[in-house]
Amino acid sequence: MSTPKREGKVWLVGAGPGAADLLTLRAARAIEGAEAVLYDALVPAEIVELAPRGALRIETGKRAHRPSMSQAAINRLMVKLARRGLRVVRLKGGDPSIFGRVGEELEHLARAGVDAEVIPGVTAASAAAAQFQLPLTHRGVARRVVFATARTEGGALRGDWRYEAETTLVLYMARDSLEAIVAALREQGMPDSTRLAVVENAGRDNARLLRGSAGNAAALASAITRTAPALVIIGDVVEARQDYGSPNGLLKSVISTTVGTEIAA
Amino acid sequence: MSTPKREGKVWLVGAGPGAADLLTLRAARAIEGAEAVLYDALVPAEIVELAPRGALRIETGKRAHRPSMSQAAINRLMVKLARRGLRVVRLKGGDPSIFGRVGEELEHLARAGVDAEVIPGVTAASAAAAQFQLPLTHRGVARRVVFATARTEGGALRGDWRYEAETTLVLYMARDSLEAIVAALREQGMPDSTRLAVVENAGRDNARLLRGSAGNAAALASAITRTAPALVIIGDVVEARQDYGSPNGLLKSVISTTVGTEIAA
Repeated sequence: MSTPKREGKVWLVGAGPGAADLLTLRAARAIEGAEAVLYDALVPAEIVELAPRGALRIETGKRAHRPSMSQAAINRLMVKLARRGLRVVRLKGGDPSIFGRVGEELEHLARAGVDAEVIPGVTAASAAAAQFQLPLTHRGVARRVVFATARTEGGALRGDWRYEAETTLVLYMARDSLEAIVAALREQGMPDSTRLAVVENAGRDNARLLRGSAGNAAALASAITRTAPALVIIGDVVEARQDYGSPNGLLKSVISTTVGTEIAA
Repeated sequence: MSTPKREGKVWLVGAGPGAADLLTLRAARAIEGAEAVLYDALVPAEIVELAPRGALRIETGKRAHRPSMSQAAINRLMVKLARRGLRVVRLKGGDPSIFGRVGEELEHLARAGVDAEVIPGVTAASAAAAQFQLPLTHRGVARRVVFATARTEGGALRGDWRYEAETTLVLYMARDSLEAIVAALREQGMPDSTRLAVVENAGRDNARLLRGSAGNAAALASAITRTAPALVIIGDVVEARQDYGSPNGLLKSVISTTVGTEIAA
């Protein structure tokens, strides 16, 4: 009689926003127990390195403006590795359930009969908010926060943006469409004085905050670094605190030269 | 000459959604170095216990239907402890920047001249999504996710709910107003067939998923446990995956009797 083959399993793991210590303890344990790790390009090397020495490590790409493995190829690879009986960790930046295509991967795994588990992570918006001390909700200023993306399958911007008062709008992967989205929101009645922020490399040591207003979105857009991941925060939480100014103490030395770069209105 | 007094500092720390291992590594280190910990009632004991033996531990409450320390008292206490030169950790459930009143606390600390740092956490919506494998965004189903709360300073529900297609709406602290909010959204054109989920104790071992639709929100609301923290998810992501059914493997034994409790439409 042969030993029954161990069943493989896939963990879809949120690696958080880019700082190795913003990983959860559960995610760290899953990676430490992995036999194969498939990781997106933005996941920090220190996190991938938590995997045991002998583990397979496969970069899947998914970085803007660079070649990536297709979603179909990632799906097939996860199934193939799990069917070999391996413990597979699929590492994604941020939180898998927020713009992480976790639904598509879960669906594919379930159809293939592969057991899967999701481990949540800190999403980039939470990291940006913490790092620059901009609350996403704030009494009297924002009682709602919306996470949206301008990037669709076809790459086109869909024109159904609505302006709502007392709302913080966070745009993921919106660098290229910031101006168009702000223009659409202004048409909907968003005041020109509404504050905007762009956070590049949220959560990382080289994070950078750029602030402006709806009225000067074009200048803000042109100041964004093309190669860095960028998050856009639209709403008066950007200046909600009357004492605004000091980012997290931890990072003062790193970002003091760039934080608060103010683009004249 | 006397030794210069060490300056105190306050870390505003997201404890995550309620499972001890959904804490970030950075948060764990901050708690391990704390001399005083002020923690909300929903923070798990295992997380508070990471503080050193001699650390002050003060529960601030903030649990629905139970007495709590006032926000003003919490603000004063943080300043008082920091001025004694202590390393103070203020532990909040979830992520401090999402319905965590972090802006108010930062403002108070800055005015008092106390150095502060924010450590982000996994928000309850991400934990609920991971645990029950409901993506918050999903191709062709939801390209936006909104986090809102019905609880305001006055306790009143403000009637500015708007229905938007391809949007997942997550309501924090909305148990008591679920019916009223769904009624407002239906008036705005939300179809009765729109799927609803209530996740009680998101992230914890005793988490429970209740599913229904906009058309039977009343029945769903009446099934919610009164004493558990509850999150409401409105949108077709609740049934987005064609193979829906299996929650995270880890939790199968715990929640198999309650998951998928379906309230007839």
